[in-house]
Amino acid sequence: MELAILFGGASFEHEISIVSAITVKSKLNKYTLSFIFCDADHEFYKIDASNMRAKYFSNLEYKKSSKLSLIKGGFEEKKMFASKTLKVNVLNLIHGADGEDGSISALFDFYNIPFIGPRKEASVFSFDKEYTKYIARSLDVRTLDYEVVHANQAYNIKTPLPYIIKPARLGSSIGVSVVKDESEVDYALDVAFEYDTRVIIEPFIDGVKEYNLAGYGARESIRYSIIEEPAKNEFLDFDKKYLDFSRSATVSEADIDEKLKLKMQSTFSKLYGELFRGALIRCDFFVINDEVYLNEINPIPGSMASYLFEDFEVAVGEILEYLPKNESIKVDYNYINSINQAKGK
Amino acid sequence: MELAILFGGASFEHEISIVSAITVKSKLNKYTLSFIFCDADHEFYKIDASNMRAKYFSNLEYKKSSKLSLIKGGFEEKKMFASKTLKVNVLNLIHGADGEDGSISALFDFYNIPFIGPRKEASVFSFDKEYTKYIARSLDVRTLDYEVVHANQAYNIKTPLPYIIKPARLGSSIGVSVVKDESEVDYALDVAFEYDTRVIIEPFIDGVKEYNLAGYGARESIRYSIIEEPAKNEFLDFDKKYLDFSRSATVSEADIDEKLKLKMQSTFSKLYGELFRGALIRCDFFVINDEVYLNEINPIPGSMASYLFEDFEVAVGEILEYLPKNESIKVDYNYINSINQAKGK
Repeated sequence: MELAILFGGASFEHEISIVSAITVKSKLNKYTLSFIFCDADHEFYKIDASNMRAKYFSNLEYKKSSKLSLIKGGFEEKKMFASKTLKVNVLNLIHGADGEDGSISALFDFYNIPFIGPRKEASVFSFDKEYTKYIARSLDVRTLDYEVVHANQAYNIKTPLPYIIKPARLGSSIGVSVVKDESEVDYALDVAFEYDTRVIIEPFIDGVKEYNLAGYGARESIRYSIIEEPAKNEFLDFDKKYLDFSRSATVSEADIDEKLKLKMQSTFSKLYGELFRGALIRCDFFVINDEVYLNEINPIPGSMASYLFEDFEVAVGEILEYLPKNESIKVDYNYINSINQAKGK
Repeated sequence: MELAILFGGASFEHEISIVSAITVKSKLNKYTLSFIFCDADHEFYKIDASNMRAKYFSNLEYKKSSKLSLIKGGFEEKKMFASKTLKVNVLNLIHGADGEDGSISALFDFYNIPFIGPRKEASVFSFDKEYTKYIARSLDVRTLDYEVVHANQAYNIKTPLPYIIKPARLGSSIGVSVVKDESEVDYALDVAFEYDTRVIIEPFIDGVKEYNLAGYGARESIRYSIIEEPAKNEFLDFDKKYLDFSRSATVSEADIDEKLKLKMQSTFSKLYGELFRGALIRCDFFVINDEVYLNEINPIPGSMASYLFEDFEVAVGEILEYLPKNESIKVDYNYINSINQAKGK
């Protein structure tokens, strides 16, 4: 089966997307893969499989690859005297801005390019930690209480210490701090405001149990990965998460009882709903007093959470089979015609 | 000042977008206008001002116009031996899908084309009547109670009769019904499900007072239009609203007291916030017992609600002056470089 992996993007997570793509490449040997790199200037390049090394990008060697432009149904590779088109299913593996904020999905839907990844509504909700709360609450999924602080506005934080400060719209723990003492607040806010104009404040629960569950929709049902209890220090920091994107060994299932497992799966299923159709997502849950709380939704998890699936190649095949279809809208100009007839034109 | 008007789109409101563009053209005489038509197949055409007649489109004559393709910073017009670029501010006047659902804004942001219109997050929230409720509630703005019914799922409507049934994601009253008797429910749901897989049910309040207020952000403040009490029969149906898109005469201010006017303005301002920066929006309010309820947000109102502004040309100039800027993200490959150094590469 043919598949193009799209990676890079104008995002703080550009580099981890490269690492992620290199990892996923090694997990999809049964596929005929091609590689599309989006650089920080939003130029697309077709990357030869043999050049899929981190250094090829950090050295800017990629600029020697052929440029691609978006056309209906795919990409066009401009050659000196002719042009070649690449019409193939795409796996959107751009983490953070562009990939997870709805830009790429809007582009691909507009140009009618079939892709694995969150659609734009799902992206807007999961990319923003405040908006994620809206979805969770509308579905009666528990989340931690939170408050919002805006840049350049007075604040009066009511959440009791210790708490965690996060930029509203970044993943990979960038700009996140745990505040244990009042004296640390200003600095933690400054750090978070480097990345966003809006930050979320949530209680920090020391030693809270954390579990990751990935899955995707296939036909009417959801296919779940195993549940992992991720190793952690205080909270997953950027370096630690970064390594996640290059994880390739499969992990072992968390030691939890069947009841809790089913609770997590049914919470996942509620969240996935119709909204995330076409995507393989990873939900990160907290468990407090045997209740499942949504921490965050990763609509394009690092290396597609491939390490959580028994057979990742089968998983990708199933997602491709059940990609949502764009409905085409017919315009018949009935309205204008009827007005013109009434006017005698 | 130069400005391109973008209209059409693959949307049930394609035709009213054409009417809207023709109306706005007549309201912006001080501008040097160009016209970009997006047809239902997502092809862009450069339309000569002299061809801005409804029939030019309904007759498919537009296909003789030059095609445009998106490039960084604007559009490219392909000529036989050369190509011309059109780099200009764009007014997004595509109503409904494409224009108001976040597609065009994602495209234009990606290609770095400055435009008037809602950004993708604002679009996702205002395009969907359920998501609009989330935003309103998070801002403590009153809205009517509602429930959601999904296509192909059993339903048990709890809202007391009479109620109104609306497809979640369409404007212009398409697919909307008032249900006064239990016997009408199935048919009304069928009609709504023709347009969406999810419908919203809200109490229908006979004779509720309805007011429209438009506005836009300029520098730190919001500029408000006058407040109109729209003429209505039972509710604004498609034909009635359609005519709205061609309205050009200015209307007279609703007869309300100063206190209510200020309440509506402050509700508008809360809703507009940072989310709608770059857009001129119209909020449709209900007033019940002197309290202001949000009915819906039109992020691209018919003919840009030009009839509500004293000087529409000045309004457009101000929006252009304060368009949000895209922040560019620098990728320095520090992370990959540091890993490679550690590996001794």
